[in-house]
Amino acid sequence: MDAEEFRRRGKEMVDLVADYLENIEDRPVYPDVEPGYLRSLIPTEAPQDPENYEDIIKDVERVIMPGAASPACTELETVMLDWLGKMLQLPECFLAGTHGQGGGVIQGTASEATLMSLLAARCKAVRRIQATNSDMSEMEILSKLVAYTSDQAHSSVERAALIGGVKMKKVPTDEHYAVRKDMFMKMVEEDKADGLLPFYFCATLGTTPSCAFDKTEELGPLCNEENMWMHIDAAYAGSAFICPEFRPLLNGVEFADSFNFNPHKWLLINFDCSAMWVKKRADLIGAFKMDPLYLKHENQESGLVTDYRHWQIPLGRRFRSLKMWFVFRMYGLNGLQAYIRKHVVLAKEFESLVRADKRFEICADVVLGLVCFRLKGSNELNQNLLKRITQCREIHLVPCQLSGRFVLRFAICARKIESHHVQKAWQHITQLTFELLQEPEH
Amino acid sequence: MDAEEFRRRGKEMVDLVADYLENIEDRPVYPDVEPGYLRSLIPTEAPQDPENYEDIIKDVERVIMPGAASPACTELETVMLDWLGKMLQLPECFLAGTHGQGGGVIQGTASEATLMSLLAARCKAVRRIQATNSDMSEMEILSKLVAYTSDQAHSSVERAALIGGVKMKKVPTDEHYAVRKDMFMKMVEEDKADGLLPFYFCATLGTTPSCAFDKTEELGPLCNEENMWMHIDAAYAGSAFICPEFRPLLNGVEFADSFNFNPHKWLLINFDCSAMWVKKRADLIGAFKMDPLYLKHENQESGLVTDYRHWQIPLGRRFRSLKMWFVFRMYGLNGLQAYIRKHVVLAKEFESLVRADKRFEICADVVLGLVCFRLKGSNELNQNLLKRITQCREIHLVPCQLSGRFVLRFAICARKIESHHVQKAWQHITQLTFELLQEPEH
Repeated sequence: MDAEEFRRRGKEMVDLVADYLENIEDRPVYPDVEPGYLRSLIPTEAPQDPENYEDIIKDVERVIMPGAASPACTELETVMLDWLGKMLQLPECFLAGTHGQGGGVIQGTASEATLMSLLAARCKAVRRIQATNSDMSEMEILSKLVAYTSDQAHSSVERAALIGGVKMKKVPTDEHYAVRKDMFMKMVEEDKADGLLPFYFCATLGTTPSCAFDKTEELGPLCNEENMWMHIDAAYAGSAFICPEFRPLLNGVEFADSFNFNPHKWLLINFDCSAMWVKKRADLIGAFKMDPLYLKHENQESGLVTDYRHWQIPLGRRFRSLKMWFVFRMYGLNGLQAYIRKHVVLAKEFESLVRADKRFEICADVVLGLVCFRLKGSNELNQNLLKRITQCREIHLVPCQLSGRFVLRFAICARKIESHHVQKAWQHITQLTFELLQEPEH
Repeated sequence: MDAEEFRRRGKEMVDLVADYLENIEDRPVYPDVEPGYLRSLIPTEAPQDPENYEDIIKDVERVIMPGAASPACTELETVMLDWLGKMLQLPECFLAGTHGQGGGVIQGTASEATLMSLLAARCKAVRRIQATNSDMSEMEILSKLVAYTSDQAHSSVERAALIGGVKMKKVPTDEHYAVRKDMFMKMVEEDKADGLLPFYFCATLGTTPSCAFDKTEELGPLCNEENMWMHIDAAYAGSAFICPEFRPLLNGVEFADSFNFNPHKWLLINFDCSAMWVKKRADLIGAFKMDPLYLKHENQESGLVTDYRHWQIPLGRRFRSLKMWFVFRMYGLNGLQAYIRKHVVLAKEFESLVRADKRFEICADVVLGLVCFRLKGSNELNQNLLKRITQCREIHLVPCQLSGRFVLRFAICARKIESHHVQKAWQHITQLTFELLQEPEH
């Protein structure tokens, strides 16, 4: 949608809201639909090609309004997570469908998804261990539980363990910053020998520092054998898996118990929208179900209704699936794939520029839209370069540390980015580099 | 703002967004402001009377844009929570000001605020107890910690304890459904005698079932003496405390460590916006601080900057304080107070209608906008009445259980509600009651 159409459609939307509020008393206060009403009103998959805005907005009255905020909000979310799951070619067991045991939910952030998976895993582990060790108290079990994640994992993973009150150990990564089976298995065996109870592994596909990918295809079977919950955090990289050529990066998800990525990061959905799927929804729900009378409703026990309040920390929920519905239809799968591919091409373009300049080095494989690079030389030199870049306020780079080295990260993420922006950014960086290296102390 | 002005302003806003996006490359990618820049650009308190929309929208360019998303998003939030805290006449120690140790934060829901307070209390208790009992392990302490809340408290409080992995006990309430000191003290003494470690009490001001108020003025000093964290959950009722005549209901907050209410419930701010204050921000931050390199920034250690990511579960944040800024200025304190008072008057009007009908009884004190009532007679009779009301879809009531009795709840909460809506609702209820009582089985 270009700016001109945005102005027109935005103004129509303002009128739609005003009309709605002016005539709200003509609408019933309570919807008159049966559980599951929505699924049959819309297609089972996202469109391949962009749809017309007129058609989309008309569907708001046809599909959403009869179900009002509830159950439309819940039902659209379940179907949208199925749409998105199909785009990613997630195994069938992660989809809700009409009779599935799995399904998806929108969390606010990947931090919340990680926390929910860890808490569900904790609860499941305590129950399983107590079933065969009735003499062990819950606290005794908790004190022996141990979770694992990559030494490259996001800080929110460690924080989830802190909140959940369980130990978490960091698995050292290989030269590509990925967790491999051998090292992980060694840790698990040692911990078991020490009387600990391994119960959870958070794998990362696309780490924050360098966009590295843990070897989930070899780690998954190990987790399954050891009765450990495997959660996959693909917060950034997940969006790319809608492209067949990047889908192999997700291989191994079939061994996972839960999977999460953030469409708000790279799939054109406004913040916040973090998509999470579980294989067995009962695992999540079982951990936190509370049913006071003021939250009871008629269809609660029918099995037809999803109560997302059991799937997350907050009780109240926003209608975030509307954003997904609009974006998926406005772009179509082809449009979304084109968007991802363009960003990856631009990252490769930047990588080539860096590689062509002998003063610089590339510090990690460039797989998607992130380029980790640095000036050959000291950390201090690179810190000085970043300081200059930040002071100029022309581009914005966030650093990381890789194998003890201070590294700059060039991330392609703006919606309207083009090749000339990348070229201009590189010119800017090299100009500042030139100035920096002129100075007597270098 | 009436519908006509909404249409005009909404369309101006669409143009503003389109203009912004069309000219985004002219703006610096990084703000050029000093920490704390925003506070001096706006008043220290919310306006008493409504301001002009033109003036408010002009301030977006003047106040927000120079600070871009960051730090403007954070700084406006801190100042808005100060504005709101002053409206509530919160003790000074809860305000951030320029040098305060306390301050406010926007959480998504009261559930999250309760969880954060419980986790902070847990961490503080473990550290305090370990300091004097170095032989006790963290797990041993955790296994002995005990939290308390009212038997009328919201289910999310119990859920917070489940997530935090600590015991929670429900304190029985008096005939007004309030927790009193005597009963609470007895439980605490007994638990201490049993070797448990009381560490947290979640008081409720305005319970979900009946809008009852725990006696925080007598409970607070007890919590302080016993080194127990007192959190006050006033999710619904909190908005009313901006009126001097309802402010006494908040007395005792001076003993609390944290306080929370939901402006999205009754203060005209769209969902979600749950306001939480703490007396000592270090208590919250200390529990979960993680500082990886990719989240470091220059002003981190200066003490001038608030990093809200340490105050909550999610890492990412939305710019929710903008909603508060606009609403506070569009209504002014007088306008907001008038809104609350009107709802309370309408609740009293409904109460009078119920009291005048001898078939009905009022089941709890009507203090704010909630009226708990029922037909004199069996629970089944009242369940049948509610079923009819729900089937008609003219009004929507949510029930509760009070002292084993099934009770209907009439809540005044629609933005445009008038006396004639209340009258019409009561006519509807009495008509359905008449039909119900005609039936042979009654």
